[in-house]
Amino acid sequence: MSNKEAVAMTESYPMNGGDGTYSYTSNSTYQRESSLYAKEMIDEAIAKKLDIKSLISNSNTLCIADLGCSVGPNTFIAMQNVLEALEKKCLSQGNGSKVPEFQVFFNDHASNDFNTLFASLPHGRQYFAAGVPGSFYGRLFPESSLHFVYSSTALHWLSKVPEELLDKNSQAWNKGRIFYPSASEEVANAYAAQFTKDMKNFLNARAKEIVAGGMMVVLMPGLSDDIHYSQRSGLLIDFIGSTLMDMVNEGLVREAQVDSFNIPAYCPSPKEISRLVEENGCFSIERMQMMDPRSKMHSPFDAHTFIMHLRAVMEGVFTKHFGSEIVGETFERISKKSAEFSCLLDKSYNERNQVYFVLKHK
Amino acid sequence: MSNKEAVAMTESYPMNGGDGTYSYTSNSTYQRESSLYAKEMIDEAIAKKLDIKSLISNSNTLCIADLGCSVGPNTFIAMQNVLEALEKKCLSQGNGSKVPEFQVFFNDHASNDFNTLFASLPHGRQYFAAGVPGSFYGRLFPESSLHFVYSSTALHWLSKVPEELLDKNSQAWNKGRIFYPSASEEVANAYAAQFTKDMKNFLNARAKEIVAGGMMVVLMPGLSDDIHYSQRSGLLIDFIGSTLMDMVNEGLVREAQVDSFNIPAYCPSPKEISRLVEENGCFSIERMQMMDPRSKMHSPFDAHTFIMHLRAVMEGVFTKHFGSEIVGETFERISKKSAEFSCLLDKSYNERNQVYFVLKHK
Repeated sequence: MSNKEAVAMTESYPMNGGDGTYSYTSNSTYQRESSLYAKEMIDEAIAKKLDIKSLISNSNTLCIADLGCSVGPNTFIAMQNVLEALEKKCLSQGNGSKVPEFQVFFNDHASNDFNTLFASLPHGRQYFAAGVPGSFYGRLFPESSLHFVYSSTALHWLSKVPEELLDKNSQAWNKGRIFYPSASEEVANAYAAQFTKDMKNFLNARAKEIVAGGMMVVLMPGLSDDIHYSQRSGLLIDFIGSTLMDMVNEGLVREAQVDSFNIPAYCPSPKEISRLVEENGCFSIERMQMMDPRSKMHSPFDAHTFIMHLRAVMEGVFTKHFGSEIVGETFERISKKSAEFSCLLDKSYNERNQVYFVLKHK
Repeated sequence: MSNKEAVAMTESYPMNGGDGTYSYTSNSTYQRESSLYAKEMIDEAIAKKLDIKSLISNSNTLCIADLGCSVGPNTFIAMQNVLEALEKKCLSQGNGSKVPEFQVFFNDHASNDFNTLFASLPHGRQYFAAGVPGSFYGRLFPESSLHFVYSSTALHWLSKVPEELLDKNSQAWNKGRIFYPSASEEVANAYAAQFTKDMKNFLNARAKEIVAGGMMVVLMPGLSDDIHYSQRSGLLIDFIGSTLMDMVNEGLVREAQVDSFNIPAYCPSPKEISRLVEENGCFSIERMQMMDPRSKMHSPFDAHTFIMHLRAVMEGVFTKHFGSEIVGETFERISKKSAEFSCLLDKSYNERNQVYFVLKHK
């Protein structure tokens, strides 16, 4: 447990709690639809690649973790998908009569709203539920205690903002911006380096926790190998950044406040992820691909809905730095510029912007 | 997992959350001191009765559960005591170099304040922490997944108020009272029957969850075999009951409201517990005794402190039924009658009123 310190050091940016107007619970349809899209792929990975028989040869329990589970209906829908696929595989691969017991660990930062999560656990669920607070960049579980790990729309959150971005003397000082897509190569490299460090910690921790033969399925915002970071949909976050700069020009926000703020998230390419998995050496890559969840979405993809989604996810990060008043005003302004926003939205979402990968512990 | 329904049916009465004036966190010194008293006994049970070597022969993890953990500093102090004793035993019994990893499951009702619990997890703790929401009268964990179970000041809470108490046509209708110590034999018997039912469910669930050789240590309010229930310290709760009846007489509370309210708690005798353990048949009784935690208490045992403690524990149950205004007024009145209360307190606490037992899974 030597990396417990690392756990204590990481920062947390929980989604908006509760179930009010701006809550993640009420504003996470897109994430749900994208996990429905992932369902087919999870089914396939479990059906074709997982040897359940050997996993439950010693015990009658399958332990599953959802890393970065957040809170809201999506959490349970995604887990239900995983469990159904596992159950189906057990029945087809096992002796037919023996479906194991499932223990599901819902993990997120200690500041996640676990009270709401626990209160909304589905009645009649066919699994034992537990909540595990803490950063997934450190150890969360005992050695060889997990059989299946799932993580959706979570691993793009960095453990912290790369330090160089805040250093006025660094080439990577991110003056007047809050993200990297429209920034210099130095800024983008600092983000990439932080992701590399975090992903190494993530893979090291999971390598210890997952049993041999166990599987990990990850879905996260990503960038196709052949696209330059400056073409990424982070343009939308830059839209928030420029709104904040408008407020700087009007004297409502201090410029230094914007300079010292950066979104701690990164969208890696399949190539970057593959390299880190290979360096770690404990996992085989069973699948690695970009996908476009929008192609299967049924919900209206309009500016208002998107802003509400973005707000549910991002408000916590912004509020910690700017305070709730400024953040409220910022989102008000963005709502008023929805035509402009709508145009950007169309542009940036015409791409495969999610990376999906399946790893198996050797 | 057939008894999942039972889990859904049980009611919950969490301690006061947060860390304010009336919170359990700020008002649970007595419980802490009583668990310090229990520490010696836990040490002894683990040192003399637990065969750790065989428990960790298959895996390098010891799984521990605190059932009815509540929230507050006591939760972690008690767990630290258990872990130190386990670690000591590992070092003395194992090969010296191999201390297993510990996974600790903190269990309580889903309505317990897990957010506060998770936010206050000790830094630098040497265990992996998880929260498990749900009633311990049903299954909470997979088969044979726990090595050590601890429960302090929790198992006296019944899963619900015995139904007969609310039935006007029953001999056990508890008119004008809110507890059993000053009530008729019929009322006391209804409480005892509910405890029997609940304890059977508790033991059945634990029998499945605890591995062979695993241990369960329980500390709870109890009644010596040789004392009649009417002499029990529940007199203090009757004091609240009579205060409510004063308010009925003044027209502030409807009589029917008091008639339909009963504290869902029971203090069993060692004899009752032993009989149920023997009927269950899966556990050996390693220890069963009454104890008097007050004999080792250092905190002032005055009426004010006691009322605050009682309020932190009981307010939730009362508020659910009477609403917060009436409950506030009730406790105000009790505070004003502290001299009278003080006298009762002295009388009722001159007895061994905690039962402590250690069971081992055969």
